[in-house]
Amino acid sequence: MKRYLNVMPLDDVLVLLSREFPCPPSTETIPLEEASGRVTASPLFGNYSVPEIHLAAMDGIAVVSEETKDAAEQHPVTLRTVARVNTGNVVPPGYDAVIMIEDVWEADGNYTIRKSAAPWQHVRPAGEDLAESEMVMPSRHRIRPHETGALATYGITGLDVITVRVGLVPTGSELIPAGTRPAPGQVVESNTVMAKAMLDAVGARCTRYPFVEDTPEKIRDAVEKAVKENDIVIVSAGSSAGTKDFSADVIAELGEVLVHGIATKPGKPAIIGKVDKKPVVGLPGYPLSALTVIREIILPFLRNYGLAVPDHEVIRATITSALPKEIGSDEFVLCTLGKVGGRWTVSPQSKGAGVQMSAVRANAYIRVPRESEGYNAGDEIDARLMVPIQEAETALLVTGSHDPVLDYLADLLRPEGISLISTHVGSMGGIIALKKDECHAAPTHLLSPDGTYNTGYLQKYLPGTAVDLICVAGRQQGVVSKSGLSFAGLPGHAFINRQKGSGTRMLLDYGLKQAGIDPSALPGYEREVTTHIAVALAVKSGEAEAGLCVYSAAKALNLPFVPVAQERYELAIRREHAEDPRVRALIKAIRSNEFRSILSELGGYDTSETGSLRKVR
Amino acid sequence: MKRYLNVMPLDDVLVLLSREFPCPPSTETIPLEEASGRVTASPLFGNYSVPEIHLAAMDGIAVVSEETKDAAEQHPVTLRTVARVNTGNVVPPGYDAVIMIEDVWEADGNYTIRKSAAPWQHVRPAGEDLAESEMVMPSRHRIRPHETGALATYGITGLDVITVRVGLVPTGSELIPAGTRPAPGQVVESNTVMAKAMLDAVGARCTRYPFVEDTPEKIRDAVEKAVKENDIVIVSAGSSAGTKDFSADVIAELGEVLVHGIATKPGKPAIIGKVDKKPVVGLPGYPLSALTVIREIILPFLRNYGLAVPDHEVIRATITSALPKEIGSDEFVLCTLGKVGGRWTVSPQSKGAGVQMSAVRANAYIRVPRESEGYNAGDEIDARLMVPIQEAETALLVTGSHDPVLDYLADLLRPEGISLISTHVGSMGGIIALKKDECHAAPTHLLSPDGTYNTGYLQKYLPGTAVDLICVAGRQQGVVSKSGLSFAGLPGHAFINRQKGSGTRMLLDYGLKQAGIDPSALPGYEREVTTHIAVALAVKSGEAEAGLCVYSAAKALNLPFVPVAQERYELAIRREHAEDPRVRALIKAIRSNEFRSILSELGGYDTSETGSLRKVR
Repeated sequence: MKRYLNVMPLDDVLVLLSREFPCPPSTETIPLEEASGRVTASPLFGNYSVPEIHLAAMDGIAVVSEETKDAAEQHPVTLRTVARVNTGNVVPPGYDAVIMIEDVWEADGNYTIRKSAAPWQHVRPAGEDLAESEMVMPSRHRIRPHETGALATYGITGLDVITVRVGLVPTGSELIPAGTRPAPGQVVESNTVMAKAMLDAVGARCTRYPFVEDTPEKIRDAVEKAVKENDIVIVSAGSSAGTKDFSADVIAELGEVLVHGIATKPGKPAIIGKVDKKPVVGLPGYPLSALTVIREIILPFLRNYGLAVPDHEVIRATITSALPKEIGSDEFVLCTLGKVGGRWTVSPQSKGAGVQMSAVRANAYIRVPRESEGYNAGDEIDARLMVPIQEAETALLVTGSHDPVLDYLADLLRPEGISLISTHVGSMGGIIALKKDECHAAPTHLLSPDGTYNTGYLQKYLPGTAVDLICVAGRQQGVVSKSGLSFAGLPGHAFINRQKGSGTRMLLDYGLKQAGIDPSALPGYEREVTTHIAVALAVKSGEAEAGLCVYSAAKALNLPFVPVAQERYELAIRREHAEDPRVRALIKAIRSNEFRSILSELGGYDTSETGSLRKVR
Repeated sequence: MKRYLNVMPLDDVLVLLSREFPCPPSTETIPLEEASGRVTASPLFGNYSVPEIHLAAMDGIAVVSEETKDAAEQHPVTLRTVARVNTGNVVPPGYDAVIMIEDVWEADGNYTIRKSAAPWQHVRPAGEDLAESEMVMPSRHRIRPHETGALATYGITGLDVITVRVGLVPTGSELIPAGTRPAPGQVVESNTVMAKAMLDAVGARCTRYPFVEDTPEKIRDAVEKAVKENDIVIVSAGSSAGTKDFSADVIAELGEVLVHGIATKPGKPAIIGKVDKKPVVGLPGYPLSALTVIREIILPFLRNYGLAVPDHEVIRATITSALPKEIGSDEFVLCTLGKVGGRWTVSPQSKGAGVQMSAVRANAYIRVPRESEGYNAGDEIDARLMVPIQEAETALLVTGSHDPVLDYLADLLRPEGISLISTHVGSMGGIIALKKDECHAAPTHLLSPDGTYNTGYLQKYLPGTAVDLICVAGRQQGVVSKSGLSFAGLPGHAFINRQKGSGTRMLLDYGLKQAGIDPSALPGYEREVTTHIAVALAVKSGEAEAGLCVYSAAKALNLPFVPVAQERYELAIRREHAEDPRVRALIKAIRSNEFRSILSELGGYDTSETGSLRKVR
């Protein structure tokens, strides 16, 4: 069993990188057409003056201003020395002003004016834009798209820009390329795909090398070759301390391991090494660990080479749930951020380092500092944006019970420029979020003992608050299984459950009680997942024999479904937010014919009440 | 003389575009490698669950949790049913938990534990990341670089993205391609270069067509072809109402002119037309007019097609000079923005629509609304960022007397992440900016009657303020001419002057007085330019026979130079800003050996006092 050589705090790693590596940038010469977004390697100078000679700035006539000086409304002057010019034409030598054509009366080739011309009026003097020899832009300047026009004008058609050649070496005998369905034990190589996109976006030039099998010799040869051909080498996976983690040994053999283990979560099993004076980084295998190391270490380090790496904008926001943490590591948590009633709220996502969807759903992340013990719900904290701020400002937070149709609503709202972000915390979780005013809408399906849905719970938990309920659909819940089990047939079969507080769990417990079945008769009753599709999938994969979910989830995986109940799946919305344009767009989407068609196609939804509104208080 | 058909307010133009054009987006299928930054045309779904079966989340042993339940520190249990697994390995059927290898004692192939395992601990359940059939991202989602990793994992190797095909038709017989030095009357075509970079950056796909001569027939053929092949056509130049402006007639012949003339400055002579139901935009010829139309009309309009066009971030800032304006047009003014002593200040640049360097120097712009009469100096106004906010925050504002070495200081400061922005308002203008605390440093060379430089003026204009003077160099001023004129020989020769308030102008006036020369003896005395290089260039181009400038400017253009005086060119800095990191970096750059070498190479600078500091009060 190998152990980490040392575990170094993140800030110290960044200091070490700056100290150990001088970072001479590579340069490459590119044509102007590719200059947008690149960073100049040296200052650029104009090749000639612009304009080189005086030009007319208006359509009109070039004149000798001295000849015009007596012209006035009551004293028209017919000019002797005149040249007709259009905007951009050369003002011929001897002329020193231009009069707009609108102010000139022409007859038989003679030009008459009624107003004098000041010397040099409407003339673009030579060098007005740029004088020969002047510096156009300094080195290390990130070229903005519009600046390519100026460069063209100044005759700069090729230029030297900064680049950093990064060699990406994917290692692992289990790797297969994207596009092939992985067999058991195979893994789609995605970390170097991600690294390339993230690093290329700031002007690095990445090369993905072929997959390398898990043998120290092959990895050594691949790293050696990559070091020769690049400024930085990133070895993907194998950076941990397991039996097949060879990266550290290989780097030590070729050069020196400076750091093995970084005090961050995720991202701990990373390596910083030095081979031939160049940095070699061992990237952890878990996608979100790799993402963290790229974002927090490699991207900032690229600034040392002169690349322009933008910072993440910081938003001060209220955290909606506790985020406990042990002292000792910087912890990075993906989260969803939105503005509810003028206040920014931020919700941490699950911490699983293998859940890449977290990084797709997240629009922000939190860095919890090393010395912190984490946060309590309600704390004001710093969230770092992963989207433009305008996009975060249009986030529509939907928090509560899960249903696959929420994704389709998100799709319908995108053309309106709204990002629907759904967080699956179950119906009760949604009601709590609504009570704390931390979401725009809470999907819920909670059955009261009197047989009514949702109103009872809202009256109980939000007694003083005016709430609207928008019906998404009547929704069939039922037993999913491979063998077509009914509710009464559940006892004795391995079960997969939904989390406490979810409406589906409450429906199950209500049904078991009604039927006189003890939960202990359902082996697996304590095993919880958070979505309908996860229930169906557990059944499909054989992990469980049965579970309770909506029809659309069973249908999506082609599994038998035996209906148990039809329930009212509604969105609870505080009436104070009814006029919020995001909320209005949401309701409009629910009431659209397009959404009705989607419900029909998914199946198991009764649309007779879809879009209807009930007022609670 | 053709006239504009109508002049429409900007907001009305945007409404008209949305009303007249349904904007069906084009889609194209691209490989995953090119997906970063593009916008999805349809929702993306996972092709399979990830993972498809249960995987070990740790290096260790797979166990049956039931068998471990009696294990405790005082009661070790040796397990019967065990499978050795590394992170990512399949958990074999029948096993339901993983124990970390650190918590296992192995001897002779037997595994002993001292702690029980909870069911499903350290197991990544099937579908933990994504379940088969789940939506990965909705349509109209701009793919962030890191998301390419998730798409690879989910088997999405090709995808449909939104694009807008834009045909760019450059017209004008005077056009030549960039890279050729323009002869008199020729113009380098730069507007479609700029348009392509700006539109491609948001996901459009632009085609630049060959240059078209200025005949209605050729322009018509080119536009007709471009309309067939694209979603939008932009005809560059010829949009005004001059004798050679054919765009409007051509569009009217092929379809319909909806707008001719937009109430903006710059950008007024623009056209919106409709041909075959597609928008055809006539772009004005002046580069900054074209930039304004692209930024304010075409880019926002592309949002209608589903492209993600970011907004410019708005900063509330104090405007340093008056910006008068007539009611009736939205006016767009390029400006420089920076933070002095914690307060954002913004300075408008020259308004010349042909000065592309303004768009290179500017880091922000101001929109003065149609109904506004402009601003007074000191007003709080909205500035829109043209750079990331972090870059604006590191802007170092240097306002005052011009010298070419300021550009080289800017170059030396770039590796420190600092953007030096110099504004040329002359020495007195700099002193006023310093007094109002609107710049970080004011370059100045003002001679008092007692023969001392700068201190006298600072004591007079900033009597209560502690100021440091950093010497940039002793600097030779002299007469630039083609014939080697001396100061005494100036009378009777056409002269090019510097603006009032500049140190060079004051030096001239002082010298004329000393020599008993009346300014009226210098024809052209009233003709003012604002930089040394502009003086030299006016002499080189033949506009004037002589002027006063620094040696380096004459040398850059290979012109004779007769010294008149050596002066002390210094930077005045409020002492309260001495600890500002930008100011410290500036002083360090002035004191560097690199800067000394640059001064020597440029010539005409005495470096014996370079970097020395004098305190005023």
